[in-house]
Amino acid sequence: MEPIYEKTKQKEDRLLRISRMLFDYKNNILPPWQPLQRDPRTCCHHHLHEKIELLYFIEGTVIFRIDGVPYTCNPGDFLIVNPFEPHSGVTSPECDIVRYYAFNLDCNLLKKLPVTRLSELFDPLLSGSAAYPHTLPATDPTGKIIRAELEAILATVQTRNAELYQIASVCRIFAALGDPIVAPSGGGTRSADFVRRCILYIQSNDPRAVSLEAISRSFSYNKAYFTTLFRKHFGVPFTDFLNRYKIENAHALIRGGNRNLSEVAQRSGFNYYAYFFRKFKEVSGMTPGEYVTYCDRLEKK
Amino acid sequence: MEPIYEKTKQKEDRLLRISRMLFDYKNNILPPWQPLQRDPRTCCHHHLHEKIELLYFIEGTVIFRIDGVPYTCNPGDFLIVNPFEPHSGVTSPECDIVRYYAFNLDCNLLKKLPVTRLSELFDPLLSGSAAYPHTLPATDPTGKIIRAELEAILATVQTRNAELYQIASVCRIFAALGDPIVAPSGGGTRSADFVRRCILYIQSNDPRAVSLEAISRSFSYNKAYFTTLFRKHFGVPFTDFLNRYKIENAHALIRGGNRNLSEVAQRSGFNYYAYFFRKFKEVSGMTPGEYVTYCDRLEKK
Repeated sequence: MEPIYEKTKQKEDRLLRISRMLFDYKNNILPPWQPLQRDPRTCCHHHLHEKIELLYFIEGTVIFRIDGVPYTCNPGDFLIVNPFEPHSGVTSPECDIVRYYAFNLDCNLLKKLPVTRLSELFDPLLSGSAAYPHTLPATDPTGKIIRAELEAILATVQTRNAELYQIASVCRIFAALGDPIVAPSGGGTRSADFVRRCILYIQSNDPRAVSLEAISRSFSYNKAYFTTLFRKHFGVPFTDFLNRYKIENAHALIRGGNRNLSEVAQRSGFNYYAYFFRKFKEVSGMTPGEYVTYCDRLEKK
Repeated sequence: MEPIYEKTKQKEDRLLRISRMLFDYKNNILPPWQPLQRDPRTCCHHHLHEKIELLYFIEGTVIFRIDGVPYTCNPGDFLIVNPFEPHSGVTSPECDIVRYYAFNLDCNLLKKLPVTRLSELFDPLLSGSAAYPHTLPATDPTGKIIRAELEAILATVQTRNAELYQIASVCRIFAALGDPIVAPSGGGTRSADFVRRCILYIQSNDPRAVSLEAISRSFSYNKAYFTTLFRKHFGVPFTDFLNRYKIENAHALIRGGNRNLSEVAQRSGFNYYAYFFRKFKEVSGMTPGEYVTYCDRLEKK
């Protein structure tokens, strides 16, 4: 069974993933990774991941929260989300159209570039002992470089050698950013460490093998204690979090073109299709079949 | 014995090696990798290697020959030497000072960058079935990009994140160059293939194990036939070529700071110090000790 999971993982094995986020509320065009939310103004629900995310805002206003701190983002602004920082976003109710790009950078792949100092740069970031500032003033010279490189990536995205231009820009962004600064209290503490360890456990195991029992055991905690601790740090019960994580994997598989829904269910970590179906509807607001139609319709546009 | 050789090899494990070439004939300042030649105007003897070399000319005039074709290089010009292309250079007798930079790029390390199309780009280059043009007209837009990126590398060479800027520029150079063009007759022929296989054999084996017997055997040729073929393609007898190759390894070790000359002799592939000493003097025009003094003197400058 293992190889199936590995295969899905490999597909995402890219240094940089660019997502174009368009919210056209007038014509009801929302991104395919944005299934109907309870609140239509939510453009990115509360979540966290190992990748570094750069957000670059083109049109409209978005209010992003990183680690609880709100940032009002207007065209031309960018935001840096460090690994494992919980973040969420809502579009401003005054805006009919909101457009921004999310650049997700895989630090573990970045570390493999043939550059001597990269582990020195990214290890503190991954362990949470250091972080980049979330934003830089409009006049900051580093901010100008970052903006220019993000524009360069977008300008070359359709060219034959797009990936080479992307690596070039990513390297220049990190060269300009320099060393991350030592995180203030909160980073690298036991609390942040718990969050990190949970995410890494979930990401590095076959989703079908991840359970409350297994993860509690891996922490040497009893189930009740782990449950309380998890809810305290993540704001949601462990099972809810895990199901959302698995359903998001299913979304990615469907968006990637897989139309065999029972295979999607299995690959994303569900042993029973009926349970997958129920959870899919709960998380996405639509059934797997409706999501397929939704994606197909968007693709034709 | 193997690990010693491996250790020396790792030291050179860099994507890009930049050599500053300064020939100040007035003050007799010559590069440390340029031991006294029989002809003081030789700035780069006839040789070939697996790396791609970019030459960027700053001051004075150099006449380079690539695969027999001469190129007169003036300030602002650059030259591309494809893998395994034999090349040599002489400085113009009218110039008191000649200055240029040699950028050596390791294609095998380049191929490891997380970019999908890189093998497609570099494999034909390494096999000789395709090549980049040696030079581009001054008005060519790609030429302008290459010049700008080479300047960018030189401008950031002293900065903390120099390697990141270097990868960025290297990626942009290859993105601008695009696919190498199919080599005209000569490239990828059996003749070029023989040259390639010889170089690869010498580079990938412990130098102490490389001998006329061993390499002839690896080609399934008898010694006499191999000797004739080698001389025809390389212009020098195999033993001369091998000794020069080993002595150049010794130069690199000394320049890298190794002052234990018997260790240098062993690492560069000589079992007997007396023989090493004799060959060193023959190739370099000075004894190993004199070369150490020469390097130390240059370092202090």
